[in-house]
Amino acid sequence: MKWAISRRAQQLTSSAIREILKVTERPEVISFAGGLPSPASFPVAAMEAATARVFADNPQAALQYAATEGYLPLREFVARRHDAPVERVLITTGSQQALDLIAKVMIDPGSKVLVETPSYLGALQAFSLFEPEFVSIPSDDKGLLPEALTPELTAGARFLYALPNFQNPTGRRLPLERREALVARAKEQGVLLVEDDPYGALSYTGDQLPSLLSMNPDGVIYMGSFSKILAPGMRLGYVIAPPELHFKLCQAKQASDLHTPTFTQRVAYETIRDGLLDTHIPTIRELYGKQCQYMLDALKRHMPEGVTWNEPEGGMFIWMELPEGLDSMVILEEAVKRNVAYVPGAPFYASNPKRNALRLAFVTVSAERIEQGVAILGELFREAIAAAAARQPRAA
Amino acid sequence: MKWAISRRAQQLTSSAIREILKVTERPEVISFAGGLPSPASFPVAAMEAATARVFADNPQAALQYAATEGYLPLREFVARRHDAPVERVLITTGSQQALDLIAKVMIDPGSKVLVETPSYLGALQAFSLFEPEFVSIPSDDKGLLPEALTPELTAGARFLYALPNFQNPTGRRLPLERREALVARAKEQGVLLVEDDPYGALSYTGDQLPSLLSMNPDGVIYMGSFSKILAPGMRLGYVIAPPELHFKLCQAKQASDLHTPTFTQRVAYETIRDGLLDTHIPTIRELYGKQCQYMLDALKRHMPEGVTWNEPEGGMFIWMELPEGLDSMVILEEAVKRNVAYVPGAPFYASNPKRNALRLAFVTVSAERIEQGVAILGELFREAIAAAAARQPRAA
Repeated sequence: MKWAISRRAQQLTSSAIREILKVTERPEVISFAGGLPSPASFPVAAMEAATARVFADNPQAALQYAATEGYLPLREFVARRHDAPVERVLITTGSQQALDLIAKVMIDPGSKVLVETPSYLGALQAFSLFEPEFVSIPSDDKGLLPEALTPELTAGARFLYALPNFQNPTGRRLPLERREALVARAKEQGVLLVEDDPYGALSYTGDQLPSLLSMNPDGVIYMGSFSKILAPGMRLGYVIAPPELHFKLCQAKQASDLHTPTFTQRVAYETIRDGLLDTHIPTIRELYGKQCQYMLDALKRHMPEGVTWNEPEGGMFIWMELPEGLDSMVILEEAVKRNVAYVPGAPFYASNPKRNALRLAFVTVSAERIEQGVAILGELFREAIAAAAARQPRAA
Repeated sequence: MKWAISRRAQQLTSSAIREILKVTERPEVISFAGGLPSPASFPVAAMEAATARVFADNPQAALQYAATEGYLPLREFVARRHDAPVERVLITTGSQQALDLIAKVMIDPGSKVLVETPSYLGALQAFSLFEPEFVSIPSDDKGLLPEALTPELTAGARFLYALPNFQNPTGRRLPLERREALVARAKEQGVLLVEDDPYGALSYTGDQLPSLLSMNPDGVIYMGSFSKILAPGMRLGYVIAPPELHFKLCQAKQASDLHTPTFTQRVAYETIRDGLLDTHIPTIRELYGKQCQYMLDALKRHMPEGVTWNEPEGGMFIWMELPEGLDSMVILEEAVKRNVAYVPGAPFYASNPKRNALRLAFVTVSAERIEQGVAILGELFREAIAAAAARQPRAA
């Protein structure tokens, strides 16, 4: 580099995974790698009609600079949806921006930040720019273990970053009793909770567990998103935060992009103001539940012994573990040669990555191609297991 | 604050000016304080038609996640407009985001950053979050003085932030020979130039001076914006940067908001793809030139002796200086009581603020109200000058 750049920028490195996954854009590749919602779930007609109304109503206002906090009717909508005071709501340019703002406001170099094991890669990346020290909280297939939160572990932590609902990457949901225990321990130990909840509405059966926010509004920064219930290309998310943190987040937001586009905020509000989400979200739940079932069925048919996976109750992801000793990153190269892709699990860990884990996304792939792709992966994993066994014969 | 927050967030303070200016939202206030472009300049009908085409063409793509770099046809449009390789173009969520990304990539705590005297407040705020050490470059009413750039001054500077065209707040434009001298000195001394150019197209006569970018593409990060030539509520800007910096800016952008909304990018591209800017920009120039003239005429009629101002050749702002010893911030309180507002000059200085300076914006106010407002200000300044003279009689 010819120019002197910041220490944080120096540590940004190119992702090996991204290089491998570039080929997944080829149409012949069956990709379980993407994190995209299904375009079939976008309420296009409703959004088109809403846009026409925005132009008919007050186009000049929709195209002018506006308040950093966001479009008031949209903030009020969010406030009602979460039973929160509107003064706590800040509209963000996608919930990725909320991660950036929270990092800006909360993290100094070396600050302790508690994360799940594994956690959302986009959050680890956003936080990393501000050079925290991550501490991974022990977790199992239901999510983080509240009893792991000891005063020693949480001492001095700026916050605990939690994804209670259908977490990316694992698809797991934190049970009610763990939510209660988590909120109680966090309160006791003075730890701020950051609750990231893009998938909360996407329970396949429609049952929802109470948010951490609802259990302790003054101790939680809640992050929501319209990306999975409306459309991600609008880049609309929001943060609900205790007043003093809300104020700091707004100041950081102003320096970051002044405000989220007025136009997209008004289009979104016009789309949902009359109750569209009540009828629209159930159609997404049904679609994603069906897609998930296609994949679970195919996995049962094709996966060799020793490969395990969870059965998510909602969201867009299944988490798989190969037998210990196999490396999903190494196998990915061969998978891509056979025109199937997934995301290796390792990058989702802040420390001690599980190299045998991987993430499967299923909402944008047809039933036929899920079947084909899983069959190919099953065959490949079978070969990899056999090859590993041949290399390392079991001790007698 | 109950929660431990970052050092950068602690230094974010509430602006006294913003508190005073809150009252300017009252309709009876004649506000020369706003930095808003005129809504009469938004090409509403063209944007509405463009939006309809976006929905007709490929709505799913317009509503889906997309590449961090931006929508390729829009990037190509920008590249053609600036005769730059498309690989160097990154679309940002307004050019405020470009400031944030540049700061993220370039500034460590204590890094030297060179700025004009005065400079754009939004940039000072965005950079401040990353705790640089600002060094103000001596400037006069034509802009910064290239000969002030000595090796001692520029040693170790991460970049020099320049606004050559109709700078916010002063409205001044850097003459051609200074641009050449600036680029030559920067190259000689190894200083990266950051060229912020939201107003470049808004010369009242249509004459344009070459950008710093065009003079040394490998030594300049150029920031452009659609806010003043299309509509700010879309939050669309762009950065053109040398390859290695472009790559880092993209990585920082991905962590900041993944990408700028697909929807707004496509609407903007559909609006301008067939040459709209060629016919539209001249209408903005004419409007703003006329507005500027209203204000210059009114100033001539009403301002007392001792008050000076520049005559901008483009853009949205006039810079005024009251006699030394007067404080435009103190006088603002009285101005607001008389229902007229402006922005005091002091916050635009990184150091040694000129307390007698102020910024006047004129593009959103009618000719009648410009006349009324300037008359009130003229009266007020006359009183302030008289009061100051009474307090401090001139030495014999």
